[in-house]
Amino acid sequence: MVILIDGQPGNQLPVDDRGFAYGDGVFRTLSLRGGITPLLERHYAKLAGDCRALGIRPPAEADLRADLAQIADRHPDCAVRITVTRGSGGRGYAMPEAAQPRRIVSASSLPDYPAQWSRDGVTVRYCSTILASQPLLAGIKHLNRLENVLARAEWNDPQIAEGLLGDSAGHLIEGTRCNLFIIEQGTLVTPDLSACGVAGVIRQAMIEPGASHGFSVRIDHIDRARLENADGMLLVNSLIGVWPVARLGERQWTGFSVAHHLQEWLDELAG
Amino acid sequence: MVILIDGQPGNQLPVDDRGFAYGDGVFRTLSLRGGITPLLERHYAKLAGDCRALGIRPPAEADLRADLAQIADRHPDCAVRITVTRGSGGRGYAMPEAAQPRRIVSASSLPDYPAQWSRDGVTVRYCSTILASQPLLAGIKHLNRLENVLARAEWNDPQIAEGLLGDSAGHLIEGTRCNLFIIEQGTLVTPDLSACGVAGVIRQAMIEPGASHGFSVRIDHIDRARLENADGMLLVNSLIGVWPVARLGERQWTGFSVAHHLQEWLDELAG
Repeated sequence: MVILIDGQPGNQLPVDDRGFAYGDGVFRTLSLRGGITPLLERHYAKLAGDCRALGIRPPAEADLRADLAQIADRHPDCAVRITVTRGSGGRGYAMPEAAQPRRIVSASSLPDYPAQWSRDGVTVRYCSTILASQPLLAGIKHLNRLENVLARAEWNDPQIAEGLLGDSAGHLIEGTRCNLFIIEQGTLVTPDLSACGVAGVIRQAMIEPGASHGFSVRIDHIDRARLENADGMLLVNSLIGVWPVARLGERQWTGFSVAHHLQEWLDELAG
Repeated sequence: MVILIDGQPGNQLPVDDRGFAYGDGVFRTLSLRGGITPLLERHYAKLAGDCRALGIRPPAEADLRADLAQIADRHPDCAVRITVTRGSGGRGYAMPEAAQPRRIVSASSLPDYPAQWSRDGVTVRYCSTILASQPLLAGIKHLNRLENVLARAEWNDPQIAEGLLGDSAGHLIEGTRCNLFIIEQGTLVTPDLSACGVAGVIRQAMIEPGASHGFSVRIDHIDRARLENADGMLLVNSLIGVWPVARLGERQWTGFSVAHHLQEWLDELAG
């Protein structure tokens, strides 16, 4: 499938790219649907913000739109990964003075999750991998993702849709590739990500003031007991949208009207 | 200068390499001197151990030796970076079932540090970047190095040879690219790296039982007060060898006989 490097078709990168050397860059995963990128403005804003947080010059929005149009031409329905690295550099951690950031946009097949997962809920598990607290990098979707790799290696069962990660204080933070919400008496509560975790675009859309989904939202610390006492649990990201959780170990949840309502709201928002 | 990818000359990597996607790999930096790689057995053991810690199949030592011989042919005196990634993979954090690790060995010029640094000592500073505690990754020289990039960006003054990093408990851990020792009444003390930091080959050679340098060695927690009260401080890595520290803010050290003795010991060890 199509890969664009700084707008040009290609599938090879220079060995001296700092993304490869140090994970010195950021990325986004999103979907193209019928040639359209849902929530593109939000994805661009997040990508540019993450770049700036690492002192990387963000790509121009027009360049990114041109890349996506080129991909949509060939693959109107696909998953897209956008990566921006600090670019090529010599040996050593010091940032090159005239770094020329590199932009890689690549298409892949949309994941073929079972259709009933978004309707009837998914099974999740706890991971034993604990996320390190690093406020300097928290929230950013950077390329240093070994914790996610280790956590995802904890299970093989394809019936388990996601693993839940917490911090050293026992607070739940996120899934390996999604953000979390619990439902408490009609309020959506999502973990605080000020010390670790990735602050995704769907989570952001759900928590921002004025979000029109009709629920009140809170950011808070959530431990396992609180999660298991909650009325429901949701997983969100740009590829899955909103999944209700049906099972976590012995705990089972039924009645997924909140998730289904949020799925409709998100479809409208993504318009 | 020469770059070898799985033993073949080249300077491009597939975009789908997981080193690039997630920092999913490990590396080593070492030197070639007169065509010889000092402490090669130790470097290989460290590289292989780091690979295994991430579930990556280590390269064969013979392949690595062949790469180094090929590089030594063209560049008998150079710095060498050896990188091993999990190899190519599709989208998603799950490790590919039949991952084929990739081995990249690249030469660059030896750094031209001022000769007096190893004789008369260097100036160092504290970094404000704090290392996150992640016991699962501590000690490993993996490709997730954004903390080092951020720390190295804290200063520009070329007179400052290194920045010192600590953890959230206030313990000193390492420099951005080296390990640390302090000297206390003739004993060498180096930070505990069980929760963060990279356990380098020179540090390992210095602390192992039976090391013939003649000093007793301890691993311990070291905070700033203890460091500043110490009789001396050393920076060690495979490119610099052993540097005495002459200055850290207002604190100055003189008399570098321990460092000079260890330099000679290391030269002999590296044979």
